[in-house]
Amino acid sequence: MRLEKPLAPGATIGILGGGQLGRMLAMAAAQLGLKSHIFAPEIDSPAFQVAFAHTMAGYHDYAALENFARAVDVVTFEFENVPGDTAAFLEARCVLAPNSAALKTAQDRVDEKKFIASLNIPVAPFAPVEGEDDLLKAIDIIGRPAVLKTRRFGYDGKGQTRILADTSPAVAWADIGKSPAILEGIIAFEMEISVIAARGWDGAVALYDVPENAHENHILRTSTVPARIMEETNAAARVMARKIISALDYVGVMGIEMFVAGKDLIVNEIAPRVHNSGHWTQDACVVSQFEQHIRAIAGWPLGDTRRHSNVVMHNILGKEARKWAEYASLEKTAVHYYGKAEPRRGRKMGHINVLTPRQG
Amino acid sequence: MRLEKPLAPGATIGILGGGQLGRMLAMAAAQLGLKSHIFAPEIDSPAFQVAFAHTMAGYHDYAALENFARAVDVVTFEFENVPGDTAAFLEARCVLAPNSAALKTAQDRVDEKKFIASLNIPVAPFAPVEGEDDLLKAIDIIGRPAVLKTRRFGYDGKGQTRILADTSPAVAWADIGKSPAILEGIIAFEMEISVIAARGWDGAVALYDVPENAHENHILRTSTVPARIMEETNAAARVMARKIISALDYVGVMGIEMFVAGKDLIVNEIAPRVHNSGHWTQDACVVSQFEQHIRAIAGWPLGDTRRHSNVVMHNILGKEARKWAEYASLEKTAVHYYGKAEPRRGRKMGHINVLTPRQG
Repeated sequence: MRLEKPLAPGATIGILGGGQLGRMLAMAAAQLGLKSHIFAPEIDSPAFQVAFAHTMAGYHDYAALENFARAVDVVTFEFENVPGDTAAFLEARCVLAPNSAALKTAQDRVDEKKFIASLNIPVAPFAPVEGEDDLLKAIDIIGRPAVLKTRRFGYDGKGQTRILADTSPAVAWADIGKSPAILEGIIAFEMEISVIAARGWDGAVALYDVPENAHENHILRTSTVPARIMEETNAAARVMARKIISALDYVGVMGIEMFVAGKDLIVNEIAPRVHNSGHWTQDACVVSQFEQHIRAIAGWPLGDTRRHSNVVMHNILGKEARKWAEYASLEKTAVHYYGKAEPRRGRKMGHINVLTPRQG
Repeated sequence: MRLEKPLAPGATIGILGGGQLGRMLAMAAAQLGLKSHIFAPEIDSPAFQVAFAHTMAGYHDYAALENFARAVDVVTFEFENVPGDTAAFLEARCVLAPNSAALKTAQDRVDEKKFIASLNIPVAPFAPVEGEDDLLKAIDIIGRPAVLKTRRFGYDGKGQTRILADTSPAVAWADIGKSPAILEGIIAFEMEISVIAARGWDGAVALYDVPENAHENHILRTSTVPARIMEETNAAARVMARKIISALDYVGVMGIEMFVAGKDLIVNEIAPRVHNSGHWTQDACVVSQFEQHIRAIAGWPLGDTRRHSNVVMHNILGKEARKWAEYASLEKTAVHYYGKAEPRRGRKMGHINVLTPRQG
């Protein structure tokens, strides 16, 4: 179902998922005078704390989903692992953005790679792996080192294992739980960048400046803008992002991760949602990625993506959250906490954006 | 009661008043990982939509106030007309910031003027008026034209009337409801400016850059930063603001309105709360006045008040709210709506902040 007309202030945005992304989406919606209704199973969902309404129910509670669909004017999601039948159920009853086909493509690493390759956009060499035999064949094709990932439900390095010179395929296969998988060649890249792209119902596309992303233990540590890339790389990244978001007839914000390897640009993965590497937009742009997503799905004009400042976003992980007073003392620094009680190891508890004046 | 130690993320801020200022305070608190609990009598309070918890009760419902005081870690307010006994009741049971004495001073135009004058800071000529006889004497002293204002509960030009050459004192006295009043001389000023000042529990003071404010029908229309004032005026305004906020042993953000008349600077009034002329800080500074207020009362370090951009804040009044799509189309513009349903005449429905790059 497509949006019939733009949602005026006072309308309600339905959000599947109650984590920090849903929370920041709800806060951005509130800034525009839009209400939010969060649907999530966890009682301590951070997004519940700031939303107009919430439904605490499982993603397969169809009675609850039915009521949710009736209570809101558009439904979106904060995470890519929304079950496909949940998305289909909602899409039959109300406006869902991004659409379920785009969601489905992004959920499955094999479908995702095939789709991106079909646009003549480079991806890492890959082979689907359905069983241990497949894995042996795939290693023959891709070579070692390589990385074996589950097709679905992976994030922050979860559900993946490396195939090194001496790795036993049987062990690797057991490692990832013998789930349908993909074997990917390892790209020797210099830098990871990402494009935060937005697309409206009218097909308009808006792109933010490209951040350079640094990871630690597979978790994003910092995003720095501008990235230290050549103008050609920047332009190529933007062209790829525009192609991808348009080909999916996507509405909303999408994060597209890319590797820079010499003059090559390889798309690593797409996230059909607002993205951690776009958090810097909250303080360095007049319209954040969260507001942009709400604008897009609500049929508003896309907002101005220009960046008024240079910025480094640092994630606050696990027990680092205890250093809030230290972060709050930093100059030119915006502090964002997610309302999570338990500072579990590696858990994203908040982030800071450190601004510096923009040069030229 | 003073705050014993800084409030860590997860603590709860109690806010009296559920309008747009309470709403934006709650959103700023959420950004820092703090919860908000709004106490307000109106069912459709905009702040309820974004807060962790709310109590809908009257300001004299002491049972509700008692529970509220127990549920929160600090209490603040979004409006200066909190009844004195309500403030005293809360202050006896929990931490209240700003303190009730500062609130009391700001609530009464005569006390306010006497206090400011006691600091050797210029105010308009004034005389207290308790009855019609007083008014005649006051007019003799102050002269005409002058303005007669109720001592309490005035805002946006409400509760005031002009005494012109031919105004009958009896009619003016009836006009303002025969309430205890103040007669003020009219200042021939070139410009109205304001200082948004913040003070922490430790006595630290932080000041934002000075906006130039334009009014229409007694309602703020725009705030422009920087103001077109001389550096001396700017410095003098900052000295005055620092004196006022410190003398009140104030904790939180305060708005101080001033008139610029030639080389003179006259304090018009103080608002013991975040202030409409400080809304530009949301998009032109890394820490907004709302976050600053929360930081101050929660015992956090005061945030960086530097301005990264020039900015004009425009209020969206009454039916102008219907033009949301137009505002959302503007470049370099942040749109803020307050979640109010009824666009009553003159009602503050939202605002926009239009940024331009900072010169030097």
